Amino acid sequence: MTTVTNALRRQLSSLPTPAAEFPSWAYEPKSYFKFEVIHQSTKSLARVGRIHTPHGIIDTPGFVAVATNAALKAVDFPKADNAGQQLCFANTYHLMLQPGTDIIREAGGIHKFTGRTDRPFITDSGGFQVFSLKHGSVKESLASRGELKRSTVKNKPHWRSGITGSNAVKVTEDHVIFKSYRDGSKVILSPESSIQAQKDIGADIIIPLDELPPHHIDRGLLAESVERSHRWEARSLMEHLKDSRERQQAIFCVVHGGTDVELRTRSIDYLTTLPWDGYAIGGSLGNGRDELRELLDWMMPLFNIGERSSKCRHLLGIADVESVRNAVERGVDTMDSSYPTKLARCGTLMTSRNGLIRIKQGKHSKSHGMKIDEDCECSTCSHYDRSYLRHLFKANEPVALQLATVHNLHYMNTLMSELRQQILSGKI
Amino acid sequence: MTTVTNALRRQLSSLPTPAAEFPSWAYEPKSYFKFEVIHQSTKSLARVGRIHTPHGIIDTPGFVAVATNAALKAVDFPKADNAGQQLCFANTYHLMLQPGTDIIREAGGIHKFTGRTDRPFITDSGGFQVFSLKHGSVKESLASRGELKRSTVKNKPHWRSGITGSNAVKVTEDHVIFKSYRDGSKVILSPESSIQAQKDIGADIIIPLDELPPHHIDRGLLAESVERSHRWEARSLMEHLKDSRERQQAIFCVVHGGTDVELRTRSIDYLTTLPWDGYAIGGSLGNGRDELRELLDWMMPLFNIGERSSKCRHLLGIADVESVRNAVERGVDTMDSSYPTKLARCGTLMTSRNGLIRIKQGKHSKSHGMKIDEDCECSTCSHYDRSYLRHLFKANEPVALQLATVHNLHYMNTLMSELRQQILSGKI
Repeated sequence: MTTVTNALRRQLSSLPTPAAEFPSWAYEPKSYFKFEVIHQSTKSLARVGRIHTPHGIIDTPGFVAVATNAALKAVDFPKADNAGQQLCFANTYHLMLQPGTDIIREAGGIHKFTGRTDRPFITDSGGFQVFSLKHGSVKESLASRGELKRSTVKNKPHWRSGITGSNAVKVTEDHVIFKSYRDGSKVILSPESSIQAQKDIGADIIIPLDELPPHHIDRGLLAESVERSHRWEARSLMEHLKDSRERQQAIFCVVHGGTDVELRTRSIDYLTTLPWDGYAIGGSLGNGRDELRELLDWMMPLFNIGERSSKCRHLLGIADVESVRNAVERGVDTMDSSYPTKLARCGTLMTSRNGLIRIKQGKHSKSHGMKIDEDCECSTCSHYDRSYLRHLFKANEPVALQLATVHNLHYMNTLMSELRQQILSGKI
Repeated sequence: MTTVTNALRRQLSSLPTPAAEFPSWAYEPKSYFKFEVIHQSTKSLARVGRIHTPHGIIDTPGFVAVATNAALKAVDFPKADNAGQQLCFANTYHLMLQPGTDIIREAGGIHKFTGRTDRPFITDSGGFQVFSLKHGSVKESLASRGELKRSTVKNKPHWRSGITGSNAVKVTEDHVIFKSYRDGSKVILSPESSIQAQKDIGADIIIPLDELPPHHIDRGLLAESVERSHRWEARSLMEHLKDSRERQQAIFCVVHGGTDVELRTRSIDYLTTLPWDGYAIGGSLGNGRDELRELLDWMMPLFNIGERSSKCRHLLGIADVESVRNAVERGVDTMDSSYPTKLARCGTLMTSRNGLIRIKQGKHSKSHGMKIDEDCECSTCSHYDRSYLRHLFKANEPVALQLATVHNLHYMNTLMSELRQQILSGKI
């Protein structure tokens, strides 16, 4: 009963749960989850590591592919595994609505459900889509989730003021209410229910519910939002710890504070006192690559202080090539993005020698025998040339999406492998 | 010059080129193409054989998958090969418009173009789509190309009377003119240009241009149409033979005559005197499975007379399970259809134990660990269960199409393999 009273008091005073209220055993090493730093660069904050999960290893720095509905768009898992894909990111919001997290629980979790039993999964809290939904359909929201913009919610007045629009969201201290994009039914997502949904899904790494503020929010409102995220994350962690010893799942916090040095610092300072297994970096990450780089410049050293440096750091929603390099040099361990797979579906292929190739362009029509990327050893490049791939896109053949996606996934995983080598050999 | 005069005379008199006008060497065995009967049933006309092509063997009876744009819908060729797919059917009409047969010629033919260098292809003449187009878009035409209806052109008066409608076709003795479904430009297809297009494409087996009459045409018009098809096919064969010794392609005639015993018999009697490498069965094949079976009952013995029985027989556009069995028992060697792959894309899965399964049905949502087909060894069944496949279809994940198509292709090829075994063991 003391805890409830404290929680109520905190809610009124806006203070999040202090570290002292979490059980001491939660800070102890886990048998099922470990982050191991193999090499720390002396030139930069870059490091090579290995995340040990119950379903296999994630080599870091590592690219995390987005598998929203527990499936990669257009590619099946064995093919993705073959393209070097280790960690995949599934979206709790989508899985709650289809097939329902109860179905995945009954299947024995996402690994058994998908048949991908020897590679790890991570899930988000569902919050990102819920907050994005407020100002548009999930389709628009996903389409707008571009290269760098983690925070896609438009800066509208009263963004938290209650039910508005057809895909309405009501945000209270306790929870958010949203309408299912599938049937319009009302769904409640709270820190506790998000954690329970993620326990049903059973990913190797789960994420607490946070509040996603608009990009250019007033500083006072941003501070309030960061505090609410802290309270929600602390509640999420508490819920997680209830049965964390029976379930082999790790939980990462989400650091907030936008591009504000003081708020980010405060967020890192508070969250790193709690027994998280790793740190995810969320909220607004600046507008464009340069702002992100500047943010990482001053923010990433904050994760390199004392004990903090032993935890892995995940950058949420960003993995364009230039930002990947910037992030790796600044000590980011993993990063997810649907950018490479979305590019592929539009016929844009990533190459090490020629940058982005738009395969639909006429100039590729007679590129007989010419690989997308000369040195690429992916299954697409091993079998097909540019001319045929262009034809498949021009003819709207669905197999085109598969072949392009496999290539871009292979490209990203090869890029990460090369970056690991460059760190190990002292070049980064 | 004599030939031209003869051709003109025949055109006026409606008589097709007689066998005597074809060179005697054209009747000799080919080094690059051979049909070998391994076992002839004593119980039925069923037989087990092997077609040797420049790009590999086709075991008969064999299912031929439709790869319209030189690609199977949603599945890449290595995966299809793995599902036992040997012969694939590409559509000349589509390839003429995209990427253009010149592009495929420059690539070195369809095998090099697609990277599928060790399995055979067959192409049609382009005529089927051209005639279907006359009364609808190619999309409608393809959609209507159902289970049994090879002839989809509605019986309209004056169907041959000139340019009508937006996708107009003009049919003359010399050629057909049609509008490209891609850009509306006029394209001329003649027996000679169809053969040249197919030589550019370079499939192992090609098909002469024929006229596709409406299903319920007046008998007099049908007879006229059969004669025109004969003239077009003879012209196609003559064009093919011009350089057939330099190119390793076989050519199959298309037998016409609808469900009319006399016209079919006449078509078989004429066409089998010419130096074709095999016989395709086209035109109207009856309305429904029963009519097809009756047609095969009296027609197939006509292919079993003397020398005719040494050539392989392909049934055009039909491969639903029941009709496959009927056709095999009556001596059909190969048959193509987009039916199994189209079924798959609608979420209908073929099984040996439970017939057709509609995977989107709610009852499959909790079928954890239950394979589509218990004994199936396809890559889909090896990795995924019904519950997950249902989820993929419900979530509109593009990978669902791939997984379902692989299964149905594997099912069809396994079915053919079982039928071959049943023939060899004297059961059929």
